[in-house]
Amino acid sequence: VRLGIGDDAALVEVRRGHELILTTDLSLEGIHFVRALHPPRAIGHRALARSLSDVAAMGGVPRFALVSLALSRRISRSWLKGFYSGVFALAQRFTVTVVGGDTAVIPGSISIDVMVAGEIARGRAIRRSGARPGDQLFVSGRLGLSAMGLQWLKANARTQVHSKRAKWNANPKVEINDAVQAHLYPEPRCALGRFLSHERLTSALIDVSDGFSTDLKRLCLSSGVGARVWADRLPLPDVALAGVSAPTHIMNFALHGGEDYELLFTVPKLKASRIPRKYRGVSLHHVGEITRSTRIMLSLHNGREVPLKSAGYDHFAKED
Amino acid sequence: VRLGIGDDAALVEVRRGHELILTTDLSLEGIHFVRALHPPRAIGHRALARSLSDVAAMGGVPRFALVSLALSRRISRSWLKGFYSGVFALAQRFTVTVVGGDTAVIPGSISIDVMVAGEIARGRAIRRSGARPGDQLFVSGRLGLSAMGLQWLKANARTQVHSKRAKWNANPKVEINDAVQAHLYPEPRCALGRFLSHERLTSALIDVSDGFSTDLKRLCLSSGVGARVWADRLPLPDVALAGVSAPTHIMNFALHGGEDYELLFTVPKLKASRIPRKYRGVSLHHVGEITRSTRIMLSLHNGREVPLKSAGYDHFAKED
Repeated sequence: VRLGIGDDAALVEVRRGHELILTTDLSLEGIHFVRALHPPRAIGHRALARSLSDVAAMGGVPRFALVSLALSRRISRSWLKGFYSGVFALAQRFTVTVVGGDTAVIPGSISIDVMVAGEIARGRAIRRSGARPGDQLFVSGRLGLSAMGLQWLKANARTQVHSKRAKWNANPKVEINDAVQAHLYPEPRCALGRFLSHERLTSALIDVSDGFSTDLKRLCLSSGVGARVWADRLPLPDVALAGVSAPTHIMNFALHGGEDYELLFTVPKLKASRIPRKYRGVSLHHVGEITRSTRIMLSLHNGREVPLKSAGYDHFAKED
Repeated sequence: VRLGIGDDAALVEVRRGHELILTTDLSLEGIHFVRALHPPRAIGHRALARSLSDVAAMGGVPRFALVSLALSRRISRSWLKGFYSGVFALAQRFTVTVVGGDTAVIPGSISIDVMVAGEIARGRAIRRSGARPGDQLFVSGRLGLSAMGLQWLKANARTQVHSKRAKWNANPKVEINDAVQAHLYPEPRCALGRFLSHERLTSALIDVSDGFSTDLKRLCLSSGVGARVWADRLPLPDVALAGVSAPTHIMNFALHGGEDYELLFTVPKLKASRIPRKYRGVSLHHVGEITRSTRIMLSLHNGREVPLKSAGYDHFAKED
């Protein structure tokens, strides 16, 4: 970084032989977070994580961030401090430099926009559009954990009204902690994305930001293909969570819950065996295959196939 | 552009030997614009112009833009169409490619964030911090025109309530049209910025976004210097506008009115004669000099000097 916050604009270097990746994501109070459920540190973390995940979904390395924040005078200094600590802690861990931004005072709810610039070796970016019939479908991590964490936070918030005591401190099951952690502090899969682009293993790649069914549909639409998903191979949250939700709900969370920020990718059949079970602690799951028909089908345990409808988060006219 | 809207992120090239300039600017309903006064096309134009002006103020060339837009369902399609036509018309004229963005539906007022990536030959960026005592102070165009245009729009809006007929169509003086045009469709000085950096004429450069007095103070603070401004050299709006405002008001608009998006720059004394009177139709004015004392003084017609207080637009915690 040659020049950061404090001049008219930031001045940075892009390494020779690299292309620039640009992405931006809004995080809006009442849409993407609510202050009653999300601590300020988590709001900052999540706002940046969304854009880092977009860079991961190209196979790139995030380098620089700009953070725009519009908020009312009623927001406390400690909220602001928490927000920025969430942004900076995540940025530091991913060696991303926050080079600038803009702030403004508004009467209404909080509006955040985070732009990230990343880089990738020329010609190595992985599109959504490269999936071909016969390619094998993989997904990282576990699906639906974030949505389950959110449900737990909501249930807990209601409890608080009565008991004036958060279940937070009630030694909840470890699995609940995992789900809440996945929701509040999602981990962008940048190292995995880089591995996939570097090893040239992947024909198409997208991040699961709006739900598995929605993002799989996007990948298929971009590629002009369909897919068959094997229900029994989907990496569901641990059944210990069944105390929170019935098993059918767990499957719903996994298929349609948003904000997992896992990577969904396709691999040509001959290369599929080269995908490891785990990469740097993140499990990788072989969950289906790409088909010539443009339909997206879910293969059930009993051998039946049903159409997999996309029913995830889908903001009005969302384009990236 | 290798990849634009429609994938996880945009993929673009930065030319070899160039550095990357990154900047972002919020445009918020009720703060930066009001729908009663600003047509949607102007709102789009102004939102992008703010960031283009930041790139001009580094001496760079804007290349790519990301446009984030959060708005309520009550906003009409024709408003949206107007907004984007303003963005795209300005982008096209500056050969800037809109490579992506984000959109969301919110219940409250409109929130826009525009990020621009530009480039500049390595080592040629012009900081705010390079002004030295003895350097000569220049400003482009005319000062205060935008603020006067806004005042006219406000007065006109009040008139509309009574007459149900806009003065818009009442064949106003050409000078009023200039002021309204300067407010609604400001012209970022990118060609001038590029000229100044290319010719290595300039020791410090800033754009006049928050008012001459405010931005001059920023330049002086960054450089650790002061300035003497010659009141009779300031490029005031045409006196024909005196019908709208008294002469003292005109001086106030010139010194403190925001959103002129002119360039304010310093030139070492020996190079000052190389600054042309006009560059590509934009007049350049020699309005003062940089001093060792860190005070900023206004030299009046009668030879007296008074401190020039900064009193422009200055949003809470604004950083670029």
